[in-house]
Amino acid sequence: MRAAVYHGPRDVRVEDVPKPELEDPDDALVRVTHTAVCGSDLWPYRGHSDRDTPSRIGHEPMGVVEETGDDVRRVDPGDRVFAPFVISCGYCEFCRRGLHTSCVNGDSWGGDNGGAQGEYVRVPHADGTLVPVPEPHADDEATLQAVLSLTDVMGTGHHAAVSAGVDAGSTCVVVGDGAVGLCGVLAARRLGASRIVAVGHHEDRLDLARELGATETVLGGDGTDEAERVRELTYGGAEHVMECVGATSAMETAAGVCRPGGTVGYVGVPHGLGEGLDLFDFFGDNVSLSGGVAPVRAYADELLADVLGGTLDPSPVFTKTVSLEDVADGYRAMDERDAVKVLVRP
Amino acid sequence: MRAAVYHGPRDVRVEDVPKPELEDPDDALVRVTHTAVCGSDLWPYRGHSDRDTPSRIGHEPMGVVEETGDDVRRVDPGDRVFAPFVISCGYCEFCRRGLHTSCVNGDSWGGDNGGAQGEYVRVPHADGTLVPVPEPHADDEATLQAVLSLTDVMGTGHHAAVSAGVDAGSTCVVVGDGAVGLCGVLAARRLGASRIVAVGHHEDRLDLARELGATETVLGGDGTDEAERVRELTYGGAEHVMECVGATSAMETAAGVCRPGGTVGYVGVPHGLGEGLDLFDFFGDNVSLSGGVAPVRAYADELLADVLGGTLDPSPVFTKTVSLEDVADGYRAMDERDAVKVLVRP
Repeated sequence: MRAAVYHGPRDVRVEDVPKPELEDPDDALVRVTHTAVCGSDLWPYRGHSDRDTPSRIGHEPMGVVEETGDDVRRVDPGDRVFAPFVISCGYCEFCRRGLHTSCVNGDSWGGDNGGAQGEYVRVPHADGTLVPVPEPHADDEATLQAVLSLTDVMGTGHHAAVSAGVDAGSTCVVVGDGAVGLCGVLAARRLGASRIVAVGHHEDRLDLARELGATETVLGGDGTDEAERVRELTYGGAEHVMECVGATSAMETAAGVCRPGGTVGYVGVPHGLGEGLDLFDFFGDNVSLSGGVAPVRAYADELLADVLGGTLDPSPVFTKTVSLEDVADGYRAMDERDAVKVLVRP
Repeated sequence: MRAAVYHGPRDVRVEDVPKPELEDPDDALVRVTHTAVCGSDLWPYRGHSDRDTPSRIGHEPMGVVEETGDDVRRVDPGDRVFAPFVISCGYCEFCRRGLHTSCVNGDSWGGDNGGAQGEYVRVPHADGTLVPVPEPHADDEATLQAVLSLTDVMGTGHHAAVSAGVDAGSTCVVVGDGAVGLCGVLAARRLGASRIVAVGHHEDRLDLARELGATETVLGGDGTDEAERVRELTYGGAEHVMECVGATSAMETAAGVCRPGGTVGYVGVPHGLGEGLDLFDFFGDNVSLSGGVAPVRAYADELLADVLGGTLDPSPVFTKTVSLEDVADGYRAMDERDAVKVLVRP
């Protein structure tokens, strides 16, 4: 079968690789129909994080079940399914608590588990990992593109909002105008926030943020003090701040726009934090730091219901679609910020 | 009058300084009968933080009101009072929310406001800052020593427990066996924690922790992995961890003993974090970081009621008492860990 393989910075190739097979009785084999390139795939692509070479890549699979092991009970061949960006058993202490990312039986895509950017993927712990999409929606392309976002970015944006304590009537700030930040805007609106201030460095993406529900936007990245402008807009900062980037500068902005006693919900994989985080930004005003790697499996059913019900549509974050053979062009487009997020059709 | 003056690392002298006078109509003048040396006073004492020289020092005053300005309504001359380690107005947004440390009219002791290690102190915003001690207890020395801890360490330990979410039946870990850590043990017991694991580097202080309510102790600092031992004791970590030191190593221990999805409540002034905090320790398992500089004014009434009612006695943290003239010996004793915390009697 064909699959994307990471060979080093700016070198992702589509190659022939062995088609995966069931290995354990709780495995499923899924034919991937939709997947995506993630902002976190860009870290190794840009040479900012280590990754084995060559290695399979991609962690946002959606498709149709082809085959199931003997112990799989919740999905059958032919079912339309998607899988979050981590593998989880569904029955351990942490899965039961909704913290599937700390699953004691959990694993990541890539390595021994194939990457999601390929024609097929073996899914360990299929009953825990896979989320079935009900039949009537299984072939509706527009709906499926919205569902695909639940493999990662929409669940991650929602985790930022939940971690920041966003609720009805609240004022919040979303730091970052990438796919996760835009999904964060959607999540905040969905949770009933009254004011949603989106902070980013790209005018076109902030326009999109406004379409998705941001009530105000602040364009930074030009050397001016964006945090100061947000503090003015919010009369001293917001109680709920969503950090959706993972860079030190974004975390500093998040701390700088958070009202004393408020909470920063952070979901950006902490990169560029090599020099570490200056806790004084948080300590002096009792700003809490909550969140982490998003347990998107925990939110999948709830968000899927809204997507299928037509009240949540994150599909606008996919601003470009490529075939699997053209996945390298998808990486390039995201690297050069030609695309917010790239959908890949194997 | 006589007062302690900081002249540089390891150089605190008692000198003649002008007796303070009322300056504003909401000032009070307090004759200090009891004060203390704080672990945070040791940072400049050890040369680990900058401080003007010469400058007044000390921030834990307790005494008797000598004189009040025309606008002061809640205390009268002759009243027994204490003041938390920050000055707060009592009526701004943040004071009303219990976040007196972010008071928009607030200030610190030292500098223009005299230090607490002296015979008298001028108290700005007296109605907001001062906490009156009811008459029947005003002269009971044992009670007063317990009350003195409410100026800082007991309120700070309580803030660690509250920030970590400690409640009835919970398992918690207290990192640090200094005065704040010991008060954290008291606070956790008071909030009903079932298991309180105290982690420290001094056997005698851990003995004291056990007397104050720790159910288990872990002696570290010998190169062994203390976090690993705590994880074994707690079957994978505690959901509530109180970081009561402020050093990078203590924060790493706190992250290492926190169960996935749990919370580290931190109150140690972040020193020795020059290289910053590695957020990955928190991110991967969604460990929240809550707390900051403790708004001890917010907790003063509640904790005072328990102290006066005899159900809370933090006075054992004062293991040495010196006269004001001997305050330098108090600093030395704390610096050399001869004393947990030093009480100073002007």
